[in-house]
Amino acid sequence: MSETKNSNLKIVIVGASAAGLRAAARAKRLMPESLITVIDEGKIISYGACGLPYYLSGDIESTRALMETSWGTLRNAEFFEKVKGLDMRIQTKVTNVDIENKSISLMNKITGDEKNLQFDKLVLATGATPIMLPGIPADHQRISTFKTVEDAARWRKKLETGQIERIAIIGSGFIGIELAEAFTSMWDVKVDLIEGENRILPQMLDTDMSFLIEKHLKEHGVRLHKNCRVTAINDIPDGLEIVTNNKTIKTEYAIVAIGVHPRVELARQMGLKIGKCGGITVDKNLTTSHPDVYAAGDCIEVEYFHGEKVVIPLGSLANKQGRAVGDQLTGRKTEFKKVVGSACVKVFDYNVASTGLTETMAARYGIPTRTVRGTFNDLAHYYPEDKNIFLKLIYNSDTQQILGLQAAGEGNVVKRVDVLGNLLMNEGCLEDLLDLEFAYSPPYASALDPLYMLGAAALNQEEDVISVDYNKSPDSALILDVRTPDEAKNYPLENTMHIPLEELRERVNELAKNKAIRIICSRGTRSAEATRWFVEAGHKNVAYAGGGWFMLNKES
Amino acid sequence: MSETKNSNLKIVIVGASAAGLRAAARAKRLMPESLITVIDEGKIISYGACGLPYYLSGDIESTRALMETSWGTLRNAEFFEKVKGLDMRIQTKVTNVDIENKSISLMNKITGDEKNLQFDKLVLATGATPIMLPGIPADHQRISTFKTVEDAARWRKKLETGQIERIAIIGSGFIGIELAEAFTSMWDVKVDLIEGENRILPQMLDTDMSFLIEKHLKEHGVRLHKNCRVTAINDIPDGLEIVTNNKTIKTEYAIVAIGVHPRVELARQMGLKIGKCGGITVDKNLTTSHPDVYAAGDCIEVEYFHGEKVVIPLGSLANKQGRAVGDQLTGRKTEFKKVVGSACVKVFDYNVASTGLTETMAARYGIPTRTVRGTFNDLAHYYPEDKNIFLKLIYNSDTQQILGLQAAGEGNVVKRVDVLGNLLMNEGCLEDLLDLEFAYSPPYASALDPLYMLGAAALNQEEDVISVDYNKSPDSALILDVRTPDEAKNYPLENTMHIPLEELRERVNELAKNKAIRIICSRGTRSAEATRWFVEAGHKNVAYAGGGWFMLNKES
Repeated sequence: MSETKNSNLKIVIVGASAAGLRAAARAKRLMPESLITVIDEGKIISYGACGLPYYLSGDIESTRALMETSWGTLRNAEFFEKVKGLDMRIQTKVTNVDIENKSISLMNKITGDEKNLQFDKLVLATGATPIMLPGIPADHQRISTFKTVEDAARWRKKLETGQIERIAIIGSGFIGIELAEAFTSMWDVKVDLIEGENRILPQMLDTDMSFLIEKHLKEHGVRLHKNCRVTAINDIPDGLEIVTNNKTIKTEYAIVAIGVHPRVELARQMGLKIGKCGGITVDKNLTTSHPDVYAAGDCIEVEYFHGEKVVIPLGSLANKQGRAVGDQLTGRKTEFKKVVGSACVKVFDYNVASTGLTETMAARYGIPTRTVRGTFNDLAHYYPEDKNIFLKLIYNSDTQQILGLQAAGEGNVVKRVDVLGNLLMNEGCLEDLLDLEFAYSPPYASALDPLYMLGAAALNQEEDVISVDYNKSPDSALILDVRTPDEAKNYPLENTMHIPLEELRERVNELAKNKAIRIICSRGTRSAEATRWFVEAGHKNVAYAGGGWFMLNKES
Repeated sequence: MSETKNSNLKIVIVGASAAGLRAAARAKRLMPESLITVIDEGKIISYGACGLPYYLSGDIESTRALMETSWGTLRNAEFFEKVKGLDMRIQTKVTNVDIENKSISLMNKITGDEKNLQFDKLVLATGATPIMLPGIPADHQRISTFKTVEDAARWRKKLETGQIERIAIIGSGFIGIELAEAFTSMWDVKVDLIEGENRILPQMLDTDMSFLIEKHLKEHGVRLHKNCRVTAINDIPDGLEIVTNNKTIKTEYAIVAIGVHPRVELARQMGLKIGKCGGITVDKNLTTSHPDVYAAGDCIEVEYFHGEKVVIPLGSLANKQGRAVGDQLTGRKTEFKKVVGSACVKVFDYNVASTGLTETMAARYGIPTRTVRGTFNDLAHYYPEDKNIFLKLIYNSDTQQILGLQAAGEGNVVKRVDVLGNLLMNEGCLEDLLDLEFAYSPPYASALDPLYMLGAAALNQEEDVISVDYNKSPDSALILDVRTPDEAKNYPLENTMHIPLEELRERVNELAKNKAIRIICSRGTRSAEATRWFVEAGHKNVAYAGGGWFMLNKES
């Protein structure tokens, strides 16, 4: 330890956001004698960028809150100098890196002063840039991306002064969805949400799960346009005309939220290796293709739990990578392991979360999958605050390895995604879901957690209790409703045969053995049970609707 | 499969609660030709016993809700016969088991009819009995335990008719705590909560964590009497006099909630092996010492994750064991692995959860421990609904294996316990906490989860940033407050020296190197940072107060 503590290494870190500042602070802590310089083009550093939509919505009063520590100190350059002992160079641009001679050239954007610094180690934490549609000028008065404090302040000012009645949000990822809610719920702005894919939150959800959220968005007045790839945005008097492959939408303003790409100009200029997905290539030690250059945060490619390389721009990962780089700089062998991409987003009253691969992604990687779905009680079903949650588990149909989970509903879905994500990391399989242990008490959970239930359903499916595959188009099967007479009356399902589960055991023989039967109940529990009875009776083409009536109709 | 499916095994299951009924239903599903008889002494079976305190409190309107499926069907004997295909014998007592001849003798408690049944396999799911204090008659009008629907109905009737102004709850485990809240918050009854140990929730918490909840209970008007072992309860006019080793408490009624013990009379009569903790001994396959007799639920001993045998009467475990026994009955090798004992309980506005070992338990097992504590933001600290949570992590100081987590606060503590519990199960160590991945978005989490922060704090402690050991009596160290001037003014700490962190880097030399220093801030983050600076400066006796001012004062 003492040799690293007394190290007077010179370290330069480019980028003063989560990854860069955490690496810097960590390295300085471990090597107090080192000189650590952090360079950033911006004036405002280290802000909670993920909180900007909540500033826009009014949930957060001032952007200052996003720049403060939890004890109210402003995290500006002075703070990082005084408290963390860093050499901070903000509003400063890197003009050149001479990696041979380990020299970096800087220019102060305000004064124009230029300067060269020598370094022993360099860290690139250059982040990511929001993608703009081609042909839109950066200073367009009605169109922008949404990434910085300045972006948020500008839009909020427009809202506060009543300038916006209608806006188009292009892209329905996290930011797009959060903005749609912010504009709608707080400011009563009419929002057109435009998505090129056939589903919203396309990195998180498959179409069947997206459907639930889409209904919820529509109920809150958001006008959703799926399968609409924007081809042009034309200026028209007092507004914009957004042209897509499908239709043209008139609006006043537009925010482009179609994703980010890693900022790798500097890495490219230095000749560092860039991966297929456009991020800087790093090894498990977060070392780039040059042994004295590390990289962390949104600018790098990481390894997904199943081995593919991906760019996953998440603040949670950037923070962890920052610490790991800080360790590496001191010679510690802290690895940044694989990621599973656990993520969550609030959509009005719905909580939405996912981890691992969607069916869509798994198909792209050529992984064979099967799924199970279910509607579950978040808490003990008799507890007054119980809410429904809708879950979909994806697993490898060859190996039974778990691949991913998608979850939505008014109940606590994030907990399930967090637990499952960490099981994914350990390459868990279906059997492992039955070994999970959950703290249980009626105000917090049901006695058997939904993840246990999904595991059991998947194992049953691997035997004979098959659930309906929603990717296949509906067939002409008989739909058998096994709900109680009350449920069938109050929440009718058309074109179904109705036999309550309580009577079904004795009436299984009423249906011909060669008949294709699809069984439905409210959540999927009873229909799965009924399916087994038909299988036992010798039926060959019977399956149950996982998630049941609730997931078809999304009402509770 | 087919050989088990066509099996016409005769199976008898004693006990129609979670473990027994789940085993029965599972076995019947897998072996439809088998004959499965379930015997229970009670009339009401399969009710959500954990919900009874919430019936008492009025959160749940009727006990019927506790007996229904989530789709509103009553789970009575008829339901299990019709839907699950079981042979149900309720209100029936087992009078003898002849294990040699595989015959069980029954008596119907209503009709007095006697009957013998032959079986191939027997399952004991006999549950647990609440422990009553010695010398109290079972039909005492003012004193009872709290376990059954009848208990709950009787107490609620007394409440509804205004008969109770004051009650003593003896024992502060889950039930005691839940009852204390139910009587206080809904019915405004004066509650004396009497606990023999030096802390409440003694199976879940150490004294330092208990302290937080105790303050919360007192704020809600519960009168807490710790270190009070009840030696007698005397009848007095219109009430009771509860005599303890410490004081005597006058009240009107009393509920004894000092725990349960496994019901093993039948197992004992059959000559089955009983473990040191008083539960039926089973192997990983839940087989008792007789190869044709299985046992599951609150009546058995299970293996704790660190190897010791324990009785953990939790509904969540009973349900899982039931399914595993169902599998075993069909010849499947489903094991019930170790447990970590994850548990949670609501205490007024506080959520309390724990998993694994407390420091107290670890000491009993002779395991060397160190701990770290912290006050954390539940969500992004700038998000309006953010609440503080208080966490304590216990780890093996020799091996860095994680041993347990205790968590309390108004925020989401259950999620952290669920994630950590499953890491415990895999014998995780401190380094593993840094690899955990959490879904992050401001309404749900902070960018670095508290579990990550605790892991980092513990690893730092293993180097040189030592936290105060609250088990050692306070010494005469200098208390150094590093909070901001505003914090120090608004929430003063007496007898401290105050240097804000922002000034401290340059003022470290003001304090003599041989001085014992204990550093405090609001949560433990800044004080840990400050501790490192002193260590770097050559100080040898410096430590920080993990959890900070918030955990000392429990105010937010």
